[in-house]
Amino acid sequence: MLTDYAKAAGLLTASEDIAILCHRSPDGDTLGCGYALCLALLGLGKRARVLCSDPLPRRYQYLAQGVPSLDFSPQFVVAVDVADAALLGGLSSYGDRVDLCIDHHPSNTGYAKNLLLEGDSAAACEILFLLLGEMGAAITPAIAGCLYTGMATDTGCFRYSNTTARTHRIAAQLMELGADVGAINKWLFETKTKASMELKRLAEGTLEYHFGGRCAFITVTQEMLQKSGALEEDLEGVSSIPRRVEGVVAGAAFREQPDGIWRLSLRTGEPIDASEVCRRMGGGGHSRAAGCTLRCPLEQAKQTVLEALSHDL
Amino acid sequence: MLTDYAKAAGLLTASEDIAILCHRSPDGDTLGCGYALCLALLGLGKRARVLCSDPLPRRYQYLAQGVPSLDFSPQFVVAVDVADAALLGGLSSYGDRVDLCIDHHPSNTGYAKNLLLEGDSAAACEILFLLLGEMGAAITPAIAGCLYTGMATDTGCFRYSNTTARTHRIAAQLMELGADVGAINKWLFETKTKASMELKRLAEGTLEYHFGGRCAFITVTQEMLQKSGALEEDLEGVSSIPRRVEGVVAGAAFREQPDGIWRLSLRTGEPIDASEVCRRMGGGGHSRAAGCTLRCPLEQAKQTVLEALSHDL
Repeated sequence: MLTDYAKAAGLLTASEDIAILCHRSPDGDTLGCGYALCLALLGLGKRARVLCSDPLPRRYQYLAQGVPSLDFSPQFVVAVDVADAALLGGLSSYGDRVDLCIDHHPSNTGYAKNLLLEGDSAAACEILFLLLGEMGAAITPAIAGCLYTGMATDTGCFRYSNTTARTHRIAAQLMELGADVGAINKWLFETKTKASMELKRLAEGTLEYHFGGRCAFITVTQEMLQKSGALEEDLEGVSSIPRRVEGVVAGAAFREQPDGIWRLSLRTGEPIDASEVCRRMGGGGHSRAAGCTLRCPLEQAKQTVLEALSHDL
Repeated sequence: MLTDYAKAAGLLTASEDIAILCHRSPDGDTLGCGYALCLALLGLGKRARVLCSDPLPRRYQYLAQGVPSLDFSPQFVVAVDVADAALLGGLSSYGDRVDLCIDHHPSNTGYAKNLLLEGDSAAACEILFLLLGEMGAAITPAIAGCLYTGMATDTGCFRYSNTTARTHRIAAQLMELGADVGAINKWLFETKTKASMELKRLAEGTLEYHFGGRCAFITVTQEMLQKSGALEEDLEGVSSIPRRVEGVVAGAAFREQPDGIWRLSLRTGEPIDASEVCRRMGGGGHSRAAGCTLRCPLEQAKQTVLEALSHDL
């Protein structure tokens, strides 16, 4: 059932012993939201903890700094930035007992008893900022840092088209509340490991162009992963490279899986619908970013994608 | 002589036939400021034009769209984002007749008759936004786009530590005034030419580490420039690569000049003073970014830099 800020705030302030669920393969928004809410509830004298089916990535470990690990049986369950109960991963047993979900995905399946949803919000953290105000919770510098993290990561540091005037205004308020945005931005956007840089360099050596430069392919093999020592989390950056080349409207990344099959990640610009193209190959996704799995040798996989794109290019 | 917003606004509204000077090797802030002021003055029924000693880089050509090229003898001269008359390059004959300078460099030499200076402003465009308000000038979507361009480029799209709460608040206002930030951000921060990408890839192949990974070197040869077809303006991005590697506090880029000598560009983190290190080699600059010229073979140039850094690392 859809709820509003006042009711959601009432539910949280009336609750004790609260579990906060993040989605699997956690990103800056679900974790920023989770730790900000946890710290705010602790500040209100409640017990709270953040749960996620995957370990906290090294990139986001600073969010959990100083957050105590409390053990209790939860009386109230909140999911943050989780569009579908299936995205709870190993925590899916909680799926039918989520009391409140705070989310910004228009595709939210409505699995929670109460859903605070703003589909045009750049980040779930933007909604939580307003909700904490409604709750009268104090926003400490640490909480402001968590909220800023979610907003900055979901907008590519205010570059993506989901950024609104409100996003900038809230960022201004979070700076005034003490978020250490200098250190956060340096860490999130200006720091790369040697391994991730080397993986990118190896992959960029495979860039190839089709359809007169309107389409670009990049390939990441298991050998490149091993050679560079890069991690799974370093792959995300590689997928966005081909689409960034000037003139490219369809950028595809072919990622070799340990079992030799290929994961295709496709990014497109207007008017090409990535989800439609991937559906032709048995996959799916969003209109600007989608994917599918191709169980064949690389050259054949590339031919399949060229064929699927030929309807649009 | 230092002036304030009210006086600077009075000078501009009382003037006719205004020349606006940008600095040489123009960036997004000087050009964004120049074209925003030009459009605003045209909107007030005055004649105005933007002058720069270097051609308008392709990256910033959209700023000049729809700006008429008027020919007149200037009665009033404004310099924007120009810290020193020497930075006017081929326009330096104007150096002693600048009526007003709008700038955010604390190092401004005070060459102008009137100087509107805010040293803690992220961009000159941030100051101009406030000044246009003081002048009662209408801020059209095109003017808002010019101002946004200067702010976004000087802050690395709100990543660098010069970004303040005010920067974000003005960005919010510029979005509401119609700046097409989606298209501007995509073009400035998400679009790369094949040539600049290839130059980066070739250069990244030369990355080497010293002092236990606290120092990194990257090299760009003339051969790489020719092989990739990249332009002078693509080099800026390469210089910042080594410093971004995790753990690196001193990142150096060696750029081969056509005559075989090497330009060193050094970026450092606290507490290493780049300008002090470069001064030891006959150069200079700012505390976090400095440079010098080394007239010797590459291996000897690297030894010289390692020696200069050994005081701090």
